[in-house]
Amino acid sequence: RRGEMAKATQLINNEVFRAFATYAAIVLLKMMLMSLITAYFRLTRKAFVNPEDTASFGKGESAKKYLRTDPDVERARRGHLNDLENIVPFVGIGLLYALSGPELSSALLHFRIFTGARIFHTFAYLIPLPQPGRGLSWAVGYAVTFSMAYNVLKAAWLL
Amino acid sequence: RRGEMAKATQLINNEVFRAFATYAAIVLLKMMLMSLITAYFRLTRKAFVNPEDTASFGKGESAKKYLRTDPDVERARRGHLNDLENIVPFVGIGLLYALSGPELSSALLHFRIFTGARIFHTFAYLIPLPQPGRGLSWAVGYAVTFSMAYNVLKAAWLL
Amino acid sequence: RRGEMAKATQLINNEVFRAFATYAAIVLLKMMLMSLITAYFRLTRKAFVNPEDTASFGKGESAKKYLRTDPDVERARRGHLNDLENIVPFVGIGLLYALSGPELSSALLHFRIFTGARIFHTFAYLIPLPQPGRGLSWAVGYAVTFSMAYNVLKAAWLL
Repeated sequence: RRGEMAKATQLINNEVFRAFATYAAIVLLKMMLMSLITAYFRLTRKAFVNPEDTASFGKGESAKKYLRTDPDVERARRGHLNDLENIVPFVGIGLLYALSGPELSSALLHFRIFTGARIFHTFAYLIPLPQPGRGLSWAVGYAVTFSMAYNVLKAAWLL
Repeated sequence: RRGEMAKATQLINNEVFRAFATYAAIVLLKMMLMSLITAYFRLTRKAFVNPEDTASFGKGESAKKYLRTDPDVERARRGHLNDLENIVPFVGIGLLYALSGPELSSALLHFRIFTGARIFHTFAYLIPLPQPGRGLSWAVGYAVTFSMAYNVLKAAWLL
Repeated sequence: RRGEMAKATQLINNEVFRAFATYAAIVLLKMMLMSLITAYFRLTRKAFVNPEDTASFGKGESAKKYLRTDPDVERARRGHLNDLENIVPFVGIGLLYALSGPELSSALLHFRIFTGARIFHTFAYLIPLPQPGRGLSWAVGYAVTFSMAYNVLKAAWLL
């Protein structure tokens, strides 16, 4: 039983795939962390969007005043959306890239630079750091994903 | 020809992978359903965001009044965005988890709880149910994805 | 070393998988392009959302006036979100579909129609074209993804 599974799941024995799995899990967990940061700001700044979320603060007008936007909540939400726009293509294209047979050293270089750039991007967005800190970290992640897409298309091209 | 394909696509013969494919397709279809719900509310509440979408209601001021936000439309859109923020990590991490060789029973437990939690979350958001119904179903799905990520990192860790 | 990799990455030798990798990379790059279009409109329309992004325009009130929304920026952002809502399910379900052993001709038909529909959708959104141009191209992409999901569930169903 176990041997049969190992055969079907041999991908996990491939070093490039293991590296991809590691970094993809890390950046997806980082993206999920944005939900907790948004929730933290919503609770501490008392800024909600759904009426049912403010019911514990009392009824009527006393609760209604917490249905508002807050700059810190909106900033965390923008960081989360930026993650979706950039980490999703990384995971999709990165998987195809990992399966296209790159050298382990090239693959690790792509995965490490992207992961570092996105972690820096989150700090740059939340602190916030002066520009062009956030812009550059965004561009680095973007360029890495573009480079992987180029390698995928070179290896797989079948239109 | 067919045999050659079967070889290359042997993943589909792996039970854990088949289970993942089933639940991933279900939650992605559920996420896609949010588009139809948003469209339904836009049409019945006559609340649009693009001027060209209101052209059939007449010209000028008579159509302009339909360029507005509506609470039901915004609620469906928030549910859709929450799906993107949570179902995308499930699909990405879940695929890596399915390829990391888990027991079928553990994998089914993860996939079933997540799928149930997200379907409940949609009802809790749209009805809406009083809190903490929506919050708890969100947390259950989050915890399942986190557990799968832990298993992926344990099996694949190559930094 | 190379032979070992080729074995582990044999998926890339499968024609359906190569076709999927090609079209998935194309639509993900198309989605990433929306970031550049949004950035272009933000810079040319001088419409920003983060105070630190307007620092180069001067201090205080002179920079504050650029913290505003602009119709072209918002339109590009809506197109980007619509891509996330539709291209993400295509990539997730499409991968499972490619691994479920479809005929190459059927797979190519699905991938080509989806990719064409989404490229048309972007033009329809940005120009903008009169409805139902955008609506129909959205529906075509949606139907293709739905058809692939049906094939995945037929091949993999394990609940």
